[in-house]
Amino acid sequence: MRIDALQYANWSKTIFEQMREGGVDAVHVTISYHENFRETVLNFEQWNRWFEQYPHLIMKGVSAKDIDIAKKTNRTAIFFGFQNPSPIEDDIGLVEIVHTLGARFMQLTYNNQSLLATGCYEDEDPGITRMGEQVIREMNRVGLVIDMSHSSDRSTMEAAEISSRPIVISHANPHSWMPARRNKRDEVIQAVVNGGGMLGFSLYPHHLKDKGDCTLESFCEMIARTADTFGVEHLGIGSDLCQDQPDSVVEWMRVGRWSKTVDYGEGSADLPGFPPMPSWFKDNRDFGNLEQGLKNTGMSDNEVKAVMGENWYRFFAGNFAPLPANS
Amino acid sequence: MRIDALQYANWSKTIFEQMREGGVDAVHVTISYHENFRETVLNFEQWNRWFEQYPHLIMKGVSAKDIDIAKKTNRTAIFFGFQNPSPIEDDIGLVEIVHTLGARFMQLTYNNQSLLATGCYEDEDPGITRMGEQVIREMNRVGLVIDMSHSSDRSTMEAAEISSRPIVISHANPHSWMPARRNKRDEVIQAVVNGGGMLGFSLYPHHLKDKGDCTLESFCEMIARTADTFGVEHLGIGSDLCQDQPDSVVEWMRVGRWSKTVDYGEGSADLPGFPPMPSWFKDNRDFGNLEQGLKNTGMSDNEVKAVMGENWYRFFAGNFAPLPANS
Repeated sequence: MRIDALQYANWSKTIFEQMREGGVDAVHVTISYHENFRETVLNFEQWNRWFEQYPHLIMKGVSAKDIDIAKKTNRTAIFFGFQNPSPIEDDIGLVEIVHTLGARFMQLTYNNQSLLATGCYEDEDPGITRMGEQVIREMNRVGLVIDMSHSSDRSTMEAAEISSRPIVISHANPHSWMPARRNKRDEVIQAVVNGGGMLGFSLYPHHLKDKGDCTLESFCEMIARTADTFGVEHLGIGSDLCQDQPDSVVEWMRVGRWSKTVDYGEGSADLPGFPPMPSWFKDNRDFGNLEQGLKNTGMSDNEVKAVMGENWYRFFAGNFAPLPANS
Repeated sequence: MRIDALQYANWSKTIFEQMREGGVDAVHVTISYHENFRETVLNFEQWNRWFEQYPHLIMKGVSAKDIDIAKKTNRTAIFFGFQNPSPIEDDIGLVEIVHTLGARFMQLTYNNQSLLATGCYEDEDPGITRMGEQVIREMNRVGLVIDMSHSSDRSTMEAAEISSRPIVISHANPHSWMPARRNKRDEVIQAVVNGGGMLGFSLYPHHLKDKGDCTLESFCEMIARTADTFGVEHLGIGSDLCQDQPDSVVEWMRVGRWSKTVDYGEGSADLPGFPPMPSWFKDNRDFGNLEQGLKNTGMSDNEVKAVMGENWYRFFAGNFAPLPANS
């Protein structure tokens, strides 16, 4: 089983076919960065069209059982998520609404301060806000998973503490391996896994040692060492694959509508666009490379299977449904 | 089994308790008249709050099976509908979105011309529009039932013709019994039932012979005669109960935001508000009166059960799910 816990590609029939070629059974796709509720609904609508147009390649996923159906019917189950809480605006009632529409992950922040928490590019991190605490409880209630990939340390650790259900960092790597701003310090990873949470390893070049020149060996060795430290059961893939996107999209991710000047985020004025991917992970057909690379580290078959998909499957099975009433 | 295919009450714990006292297993409730999409979402949110607050009285209904669950757990299943297509604005993609959120009925018009069809208060009825034809097909595809209660004759008959699935008049009576503008001529009822559709009998006084003074005997005799003409299997109740609503609400229903002057609809300047209900049907506890009244006409037990709920149950079971792909 192969599950990728984050992609934001320029979706097309070609990419959906590559998912099948790569044996990818489920993908958590980002459908909103800075979109408000109504704009996010347009993105749900676009996916509804793709499900109607490509019923033999993809299907909507709302629970882990849909991955079983997808496997049986040779399709990829698509699970929705937001990288920012902008889709719920200032309205806590929208948490249940977006869950009903199919959202299963929501980041509390994307780089900046949000209404809920602090992003990893802010200088100050005052932690989870008043509304943030309420929204975490509501997300717990309905089964919308808290994702802190783009959040700062204190906010992440407070979210792990407040949340009654496991939280995730869907796409990042350990800061100790590659000290990028988006990568996570050990105490942050520890706080997430202590609550039963998950870390998805990112293939986004800015998160990799030597960026696009990172070797498969270095990446997989890092995973094996992270398993030694935090336990293999908390680890999966969150590739952050942004295949076929024009550079205007990375600018939208970084700048949205919040600034009139360009913010380069992890890039720079010299390298403002998407960075080149490593040669061994260019698209969904390359998951086999990852699997082989993990085996080459000496990890057992069961450990490799856990990281490639079974851990995410178990996590999906436990965290997408509402809590029983009065719990 | 008792099913009411239309209510728009000023919802409260009291009314939910009365539903239980009256043995009402399912109610189709109106959640939008003139609300746009975002406003309609606020109404879904309000219902989510009620489901959370009163889990022992009510539950959300999305398929006929939910009525079985409601019966077993001594609750009322609530099914959502709109009396106007305003919630989908000019965006056909919203048809599937509102269905995913739980909408199961949508009127193509409310009294006036809409983007889709013509309402029963217009002087001219040009029939189903270009967008209307597209939306009917999309409603068919996703399982959102076409309700023509407030539409004009030509539009209703064309909708019945275009639709590949049965359509309904959820709340109205035969024009031959009470010649109100909102009641339906025989050829319109025939067009609806020819396609397997349903007529829900209304208790709204303006639709009753002698209005609030209508006798239970007259109402039930009318039902028995309608069964003789059109077949009992096409008939149910759609009470149009607007319990506890202030008169400002009937003004909102009639005027929305489309006029700066008051339109009295079925009322008049002398009687601008909600008319008084018949003494034998004041709230959800009075469904037993209807049942007894139908028995008194000489209808068989099976016929009475069919009208009181079983026909709607069968209709719900057949018409709320999406069509199979490629059908």
